[in-house]
Amino acid sequence: MHTPLTSDHLLPEIHPRAVPPALLKALKTRFGGQFSTAQALREQHGRDESAFSVPPPDAVVFAESTLDVSDAVKLAAQYKAPVIAFGVGSSLEGHLLAVQGGISIDMSRMSQVLSIHAEDLTVTVQPGVTRKALNEAVKSTGLFFPIDPGADATIGGMAATRASGTNAVRYGTMRENVLALEVVTASGEVIRTGTRAKKSSAGYDLTRLMVGSEGTLGIMTEITTRLYPLPEAVMAAIVSFDSLLDAVNTTIQIIQLGVPIARCELLDANTVRIVNAYAKLNLREGAMLLMEFHGSPAGVQEQVALVQAIADEHHGHAFEWAKTPEERTRLWTARHNAYFAGVQSVPGCRAITTDACVPISRLADALLDSVAQAQASGIAYFMVGHVGDGNFHMGYLIDPTKPEERDTAERLNTQLVQRALKLGGTCTGEHGVGLHKMGFLTDETGAGAVAMMRAIKQALDPDNILNPGKIFHYN
Amino acid sequence: MHTPLTSDHLLPEIHPRAVPPALLKALKTRFGGQFSTAQALREQHGRDESAFSVPPPDAVVFAESTLDVSDAVKLAAQYKAPVIAFGVGSSLEGHLLAVQGGISIDMSRMSQVLSIHAEDLTVTVQPGVTRKALNEAVKSTGLFFPIDPGADATIGGMAATRASGTNAVRYGTMRENVLALEVVTASGEVIRTGTRAKKSSAGYDLTRLMVGSEGTLGIMTEITTRLYPLPEAVMAAIVSFDSLLDAVNTTIQIIQLGVPIARCELLDANTVRIVNAYAKLNLREGAMLLMEFHGSPAGVQEQVALVQAIADEHHGHAFEWAKTPEERTRLWTARHNAYFAGVQSVPGCRAITTDACVPISRLADALLDSVAQAQASGIAYFMVGHVGDGNFHMGYLIDPTKPEERDTAERLNTQLVQRALKLGGTCTGEHGVGLHKMGFLTDETGAGAVAMMRAIKQALDPDNILNPGKIFHYN
Repeated sequence: MHTPLTSDHLLPEIHPRAVPPALLKALKTRFGGQFSTAQALREQHGRDESAFSVPPPDAVVFAESTLDVSDAVKLAAQYKAPVIAFGVGSSLEGHLLAVQGGISIDMSRMSQVLSIHAEDLTVTVQPGVTRKALNEAVKSTGLFFPIDPGADATIGGMAATRASGTNAVRYGTMRENVLALEVVTASGEVIRTGTRAKKSSAGYDLTRLMVGSEGTLGIMTEITTRLYPLPEAVMAAIVSFDSLLDAVNTTIQIIQLGVPIARCELLDANTVRIVNAYAKLNLREGAMLLMEFHGSPAGVQEQVALVQAIADEHHGHAFEWAKTPEERTRLWTARHNAYFAGVQSVPGCRAITTDACVPISRLADALLDSVAQAQASGIAYFMVGHVGDGNFHMGYLIDPTKPEERDTAERLNTQLVQRALKLGGTCTGEHGVGLHKMGFLTDETGAGAVAMMRAIKQALDPDNILNPGKIFHYN
Repeated sequence: MHTPLTSDHLLPEIHPRAVPPALLKALKTRFGGQFSTAQALREQHGRDESAFSVPPPDAVVFAESTLDVSDAVKLAAQYKAPVIAFGVGSSLEGHLLAVQGGISIDMSRMSQVLSIHAEDLTVTVQPGVTRKALNEAVKSTGLFFPIDPGADATIGGMAATRASGTNAVRYGTMRENVLALEVVTASGEVIRTGTRAKKSSAGYDLTRLMVGSEGTLGIMTEITTRLYPLPEAVMAAIVSFDSLLDAVNTTIQIIQLGVPIARCELLDANTVRIVNAYAKLNLREGAMLLMEFHGSPAGVQEQVALVQAIADEHHGHAFEWAKTPEERTRLWTARHNAYFAGVQSVPGCRAITTDACVPISRLADALLDSVAQAQASGIAYFMVGHVGDGNFHMGYLIDPTKPEERDTAERLNTQLVQRALKLGGTCTGEHGVGLHKMGFLTDETGAGAVAMMRAIKQALDPDNILNPGKIFHYN
């Protein structure tokens, strides 16, 4: 098993490769004003939402086209220099940190919605389009893009980490929704994977190999994803419980009965308390489920009635439901505020987040022990969960100047992951491996599978220039 | 573009490698009665439902455990001899033909349902379990396995070809449903991919790389797949149309409106005529849609009412619906009989089947021209479609003794595939590439993506022993 982490283990291995001046010069010649080595820009492209501090990349290229990406990769390949795609920097796991130095390719200017095929429920975008911008662009078609990881991440970043979020329980993750890609390979070649057809048995599933590969196998330059008709009716509901177990058991039963719930989120009592303080709310301070139902008016009513009955069986209190957008927003305020309320509840803290996902029947085992251990540790924390998928996050709120707090948080995280793996789950439901979970990956999937991943990486990127030092150790 | 095929192109490249007597002896020593070189057994393991004739494998091993598969592969690897997994032989594309000779590993004795996790809606099986046996095994739990490719194929074979079928429009394909695998690699090592958690961002998606890899990257020895609660209510409906276009447009609208239809199948008038003759039915001889709706009683009623209204708008006739299992079976008789009715409508014929899948809005363009060309050619044919997914099959019924009929069928198939690709579709929605579509794969995805597939194959199976000669040319 994985050695419990100490703060020493947590420092990523930093092995910057020397980026030769000739490469910087060639990039400057090719990209002119789209190229920069300014310190502030480099630093901006060298940090994310993780708790790691790593020296920034050597330079930044602002890509405006597939050709730009291809040319930047070709030049970097010539000098065997690392290239790291950058979206908005919302990674939680250090994905975009330049642990081996190199060139950050900023994709944010590739933000065109290239074609909306409303009649096929598909859209093709450049990777720098954010999920909110995508939803804005397709609004008039009566369709929407459901995947909502919280941050207004780019579609490229979301595809690269196999993101999901609150709607995944009904609409799936990036894995289920990305249909086709254009990808720049390690040699700078441009390839296409998949088609706009809903299904295919045409050879190896390169689309899904790229989705979740965290920029280590190629850089996506076009992404085709599914869209969904805006539901005819939407209702939201909240319900409070005296015990976390009751809330979790309600969730488990909802899923086991096959209720096509669109969102099913959990906050524990401690987190509700934090949110009440932050947003000046008066929510009942118990474990809280927040749910959303999509469908026909009658279908939604049916779902709400069934879920209310299940919650009643498990001693749910204060069941409230809402139809209009305004009322729904009010009910969901607690969930929307949870992350910031958590982080701001301890001034100056950094959050170390966990991301375990387990088979639904093991959710109580995984979650209750994790919350109990967090409480016993004395570390401040918050807890939110996409519990309909068996996925939950603890945010351990540590003082970054106190290594012992970080050690405690990492010990809690390690115990949480080991518990999830023992229950048949995964160390990461949606955040990705990045730097933070490299050790856990082997625990989860075994050395054989990791060796296979490494063999694929070596075959597709023999000089290890694509976001090196992430997911697994290469050498 | 792909050169139109002639019957010469259709003969697969057969390059048997010499299987050394020492390997046969070693296999005999290890496997005793589970090993055979008997001609009849070899021939049985050297043919499938495709129209190809190829010499049989050199020997057959009946695997009874993962260890058996691992040992057989290890021995074959030692002598660089091909190994081909065999389920029930229902492939339509020559997947299991021993074009380079070698050892057939018969998986049919690995037919245990290993663990049913009803509370998580998952099941783990050995690869030799057939889909009907699986449904029998889980029946008492109130759950079912929805994927239905027609034949009572093995779960291993279905995973290897990324199969789908009539229920995929609602429940997805093997791509969406397989959660985890145990796989024997080209070196005989046993690895695990995925977990029973519903979602994960833990490294490269090896599960989906294996699904659809047609036995060329590994041999699956355990498969964990999702199950679904049996729907509370099920209704079936059929409706007939004067024109194929009306039937197709009805389908397109059903999908575009987001109706969660469980099955949506099409037969053209010619096929209804064939089925009437075969099963002594009196169905109206027009294009026919056959549908099934799953959900709550009210939800199903709503879907049926909506679909009837859509069909009415497109001049649908003779809308019939059925609630009880017996009535439903009656309505679905035509669909269930279509393949055999088709093949038996021309005594002594062989069917050359197509499998294009296009974005739903292009279904009319793809399908109508294909049917018109088949009719103009004078070749007998039948046509069935999982049209809710934009997927349809033509079966060209040729006299195997007449090369010119085969040429005509292959010309029609080539035109059909080229049309589908032009419309943004795929050459194979669910049958796989096998031997038959190797040329089309490059047309579809481009040389760059095929080169990437080849690089992955070379990395994971450097001696090319796993089902060689399939999907793409290796050297």
